[in-house]
Amino acid sequence: MKYVRFRDPAGAVRRGELDDGRIHFANDSYDFESEAIDVLAPCAPSKIVCIGRNYADHAAEMGSDLPDRPLLFLKGPNAVAGHGDVVEPPAGKERIDYEAELGVVIGEQCRHVPESEAMDVVEGFTCVDDVSNRDDQDDEQNWIRGKAFDGAAPIGPVVATPEEVPEDAAVRSRVNGELRQDGSLEQLIFSVPELIAEITTYLTLEPGDVIATGTPEGVGALSDGDEVAIKVEGVGTLEHSVRLR
Amino acid sequence: MKYVRFRDPAGAVRRGELDDGRIHFANDSYDFESEAIDVLAPCAPSKIVCIGRNYADHAAEMGSDLPDRPLLFLKGPNAVAGHGDVVEPPAGKERIDYEAELGVVIGEQCRHVPESEAMDVVEGFTCVDDVSNRDDQDDEQNWIRGKAFDGAAPIGPVVATPEEVPEDAAVRSRVNGELRQDGSLEQLIFSVPELIAEITTYLTLEPGDVIATGTPEGVGALSDGDEVAIKVEGVGTLEHSVRLR
Repeated sequence: MKYVRFRDPAGAVRRGELDDGRIHFANDSYDFESEAIDVLAPCAPSKIVCIGRNYADHAAEMGSDLPDRPLLFLKGPNAVAGHGDVVEPPAGKERIDYEAELGVVIGEQCRHVPESEAMDVVEGFTCVDDVSNRDDQDDEQNWIRGKAFDGAAPIGPVVATPEEVPEDAAVRSRVNGELRQDGSLEQLIFSVPELIAEITTYLTLEPGDVIATGTPEGVGALSDGDEVAIKVEGVGTLEHSVRLR
Repeated sequence: MKYVRFRDPAGAVRRGELDDGRIHFANDSYDFESEAIDVLAPCAPSKIVCIGRNYADHAAEMGSDLPDRPLLFLKGPNAVAGHGDVVEPPAGKERIDYEAELGVVIGEQCRHVPESEAMDVVEGFTCVDDVSNRDDQDDEQNWIRGKAFDGAAPIGPVVATPEEVPEDAAVRSRVNGELRQDGSLEQLIFSVPELIAEITTYLTLEPGDVIATGTPEGVGALSDGDEVAIKVEGVGTLEHSVRLR
């Protein structure tokens, strides 16, 4: 099953099921592409817990060592953007990058979750673009200006329940239609259950919270007006553009 | 004016005015110390934006250089604790520190706030303990295990409107009654307006969000059962204890 969060023609925020291109809620249904509705980020996270260097080939391209435990960082709710949105990073930066990632959407409040039970707290999966401002990231102890700015976390377009997503699902990005990243969940250094166990040793996760699981190799800089598409096999494709000034 | 957020005897969360030790809401009033109510954190931040090394003497005691712009890091809503709470940091750590700080409580949604208008978006001030797990902080790129764990941000006991707090207000911590930190807001490297301008260049702040403005020298390790008191002159005293395992 795939769930879409959207604003209906009356302005109410609803969550419907996506089936064959149509969104169903109660007695109503809408075409996913309909201009009568606004597709929103598929969840409303209280926090986004992100993972750095979780693919060996990306760590290599960034000139970084592999971490011996997950490298964690945070984005707040201000960073959330949705499918179809225009992301406008901080002005005057030379290098704003896309980073295609699998997003894990949490289904229940949880802490101290053992790996063996971790999938029980997962509602489903989504796509995330971990939009990154390298000008500041390279210069900061904590990546706040670099990765927690408004719009730094486009999420969507749906939450797909776990059975929709194969264990070796492809994680891809395209910029203006051109393939830039082409990884697979099989390449994750720390698996989804390992990440949940480690994070919940320290932090309580809430329903709707998102874990962004890291990006494969092929990151690169965006230009003003670029169209970004993040595809996770079994989820679908998150599209957004960027306005750079 | 000083505002207290509390759970009333019926279980409803209310915000009342504190006057001479009593909390007033509508037709009811309660003693601040009454066991019939629970004093909560005085606001419900969507994020806490924290500042590192904002007092020269603390940077020196940590062996750190002074930053040329504010060092930012984030805590999520999971980190919030209130006056009178027992904070239980992650188990098995050797050094958990207190850090007394002035907290700035934001009153309206805002971005790109110039320094000259920054005080317009401030609802008031509070006390924050930036509880820190040095075992992990010393070993992390981003201070998540180190500073964003559950309970890492006791806040309170009130939001005091700006006129209550002198510009040279003392910022003090006591552990089991013994004075440990004794700083002043005059020592801030980056002022509150400078912090708001810099943060809102990148992040939208929401009503209830908190900026923790950094800690003066004198930080130190806590032991199981310690009672911590954080006092900001004009605000009052935030008290909490720690359980270390």
